[in-house]
Amino acid sequence: MTWTMDAGSPPLDVMRLRADTPGIANCLHFNNAGAALMPRPVVDAVVGHVEREAAIGGYEAAAEAAGPLDRVYHGVARLVGAQPDEIALTENATVAWQRAFYSLSFGPGDRILTASAEFAANYVAFLQIAKRTGATIEVVPNDGSGALDPEALERMIDERVRLIAITWVPTNGGLVNPAEAVGRIARAHNILYLLDACQTVGQFPIDVEALGCDMLTATGRKFLRAPRGTGFLYMRRGLLETIEPAMIDLFGAPWVEPGRYELRPDARRFETWETNYAVRLGLGAAVDYALSVGLEGIAGRCGALSSELRTRLSEIPGVLVCDLGAVKASIVSFTVKDIEARTVMERLSAEGINVSVSPPASTPLDATARNLPSVVRASPHYYNTEDEVERLIAAVTRIAT
Amino acid sequence: MTWTMDAGSPPLDVMRLRADTPGIANCLHFNNAGAALMPRPVVDAVVGHVEREAAIGGYEAAAEAAGPLDRVYHGVARLVGAQPDEIALTENATVAWQRAFYSLSFGPGDRILTASAEFAANYVAFLQIAKRTGATIEVVPNDGSGALDPEALERMIDERVRLIAITWVPTNGGLVNPAEAVGRIARAHNILYLLDACQTVGQFPIDVEALGCDMLTATGRKFLRAPRGTGFLYMRRGLLETIEPAMIDLFGAPWVEPGRYELRPDARRFETWETNYAVRLGLGAAVDYALSVGLEGIAGRCGALSSELRTRLSEIPGVLVCDLGAVKASIVSFTVKDIEARTVMERLSAEGINVSVSPPASTPLDATARNLPSVVRASPHYYNTEDEVERLIAAVTRIAT
Repeated sequence: MTWTMDAGSPPLDVMRLRADTPGIANCLHFNNAGAALMPRPVVDAVVGHVEREAAIGGYEAAAEAAGPLDRVYHGVARLVGAQPDEIALTENATVAWQRAFYSLSFGPGDRILTASAEFAANYVAFLQIAKRTGATIEVVPNDGSGALDPEALERMIDERVRLIAITWVPTNGGLVNPAEAVGRIARAHNILYLLDACQTVGQFPIDVEALGCDMLTATGRKFLRAPRGTGFLYMRRGLLETIEPAMIDLFGAPWVEPGRYELRPDARRFETWETNYAVRLGLGAAVDYALSVGLEGIAGRCGALSSELRTRLSEIPGVLVCDLGAVKASIVSFTVKDIEARTVMERLSAEGINVSVSPPASTPLDATARNLPSVVRASPHYYNTEDEVERLIAAVTRIAT
Repeated sequence: MTWTMDAGSPPLDVMRLRADTPGIANCLHFNNAGAALMPRPVVDAVVGHVEREAAIGGYEAAAEAAGPLDRVYHGVARLVGAQPDEIALTENATVAWQRAFYSLSFGPGDRILTASAEFAANYVAFLQIAKRTGATIEVVPNDGSGALDPEALERMIDERVRLIAITWVPTNGGLVNPAEAVGRIARAHNILYLLDACQTVGQFPIDVEALGCDMLTATGRKFLRAPRGTGFLYMRRGLLETIEPAMIDLFGAPWVEPGRYELRPDARRFETWETNYAVRLGLGAAVDYALSVGLEGIAGRCGALSSELRTRLSEIPGVLVCDLGAVKASIVSFTVKDIEARTVMERLSAEGINVSVSPPASTPLDATARNLPSVVRASPHYYNTEDEVERLIAAVTRIAT
């Protein structure tokens, strides 16, 4: 079978990349939107540092790895087109997002604009801040394809809009929201723009300048193939200098004289002092790995595999593909007639195929609007093969019929 | 040489415990107040899970380890005498402390009482909340030994005291504050009591009932010998039910119907959804290990080793031991005449001996009051030997003379 790559995407040496991926020997992993299989350099970075901590001590191992640890900031900055001092490394994307969002100030009548498929973790935080401050939450309508409609957003703008906060690629399907178009509107009206890039990072090239976002948050474990328990926050330098974190410790806000602390000048003011350095080095290794593979090529292959999977699934009787949007990411969501998503997942698991389930509670506004049940989520990555897609299709066909 | 153990402390089989500790082959580790050497079962728990994630996927490995992961809560609860639903697992102690402290409400004139050797990370948070809410921060005077004076605390109590927040064993020396006496006063006056137990956990038996604290926070990496990037929060059940976390996500506050979230009933409302499960399993292994060694025995041997070290150091000309308190923990702080603490640390490091430096900025109130420079911090653990103490003494003697 031949695969059509996007024009300009260099082909990947998939067999070589698979040789770096121990997990392919044990499973067909289509749960990359959950947590991708780590490549060997990432595992080695984590395990190597843990063993070093056991050998010479945790502080001593961190001191020894000071150079590589500092380079993680540089790598993440390069990955998103930012400067290293605009990056904070966090324990997960939610912490990154919370530390940005809860540090903003809102008052009665301030408007927060979001998208219909916003991640529930972000949405409950909106609700809490609305309750606490009197701000309001409003959902930007979608266009005909189901993506956020920039024209509708433009019409909603007034001087009370304090924040636009959206998820670029929602967790529950292949939708890609028009993050750049939103950024143009945010910039034109000088409105803060917080972009959740959890499902984007490691799958698509990211350039915060082109996006026009003030803040961007992401996780390591998904398409970036980093360890679990990693994430980062990008905050534009001019903005971060004006924002005091909602919570501080002596790392982000050193005590400088009796009764006075001073915030760090860089984005690390949003970090806390202690962290697990092993997984942080794993994040750095994953970033380097993704950059060496090439994000254009990754995006091209993810697009080709997921597009084929989506098309083929939709041809199976009883299978309903649920993805929205004219532009799609490598997340394929579907239901199987009369079989619960969890059962589908379990049956696939019994055949050694990993997928996940996205429940309505993850994206409640969208799920309610579309009356969606739990959906099966299959998310190919570049290291998946055409043969694995065939085997997934065959397995779903057996389950559905 | 014979060592006097506390009456009733069972002797430890030190050679067996050392056999579990790979790092002893490479260094004399007296930096247990920084991060202790992990025993092999902890390393194996972390590495084993990382390898399993690489082999079958991060979500799939977590699902497979659901039982052991749940047992971590039970282990931590047992370690501190709490119930599992009163425990939140966090990325570090600061996050645990922040998620508790910042969730409390303060108003103008509310008084926060703390101790003179309070950790700076906590103190800058007090300052921020004071600035934000108009609360005041007051330091409880010390008794003649340098420990917090419960009688002075009792005299400070009035209806405006909203919180007593102290560090049990400060980071910059051997002092042990009278945490139980403070708890009796807090309970008698129905005042919230937040206890930072970072340097206590894994070194002494802990019983939150006997302590009378409402909240207790701790790190994994110090005397508990868990991986870096681990910590926990205990919050008394009756209290946590009345407190909404300052920041929420869909794990702690699931969306239940349009526009409404509902907080989890247990302490996990203070967690976020994503975490690094490998280090969490490492924390669980460290807790199990500490419990199997026995906290009474650990406390006895730590006390004996540190007491001997303190006595012997004080006999070296030019060495000044700086520890306060009538009751002391296994942290020995000292200076060497005319040699900066960092230089002492580096010279010891060159001989394969790990100690650390506690700068004034870590405990600024105490350091200012005592005019303390940076001090060298040597913190023995039960797996250290009498011979290692001798070698440390000999090395410091060579440096000082």
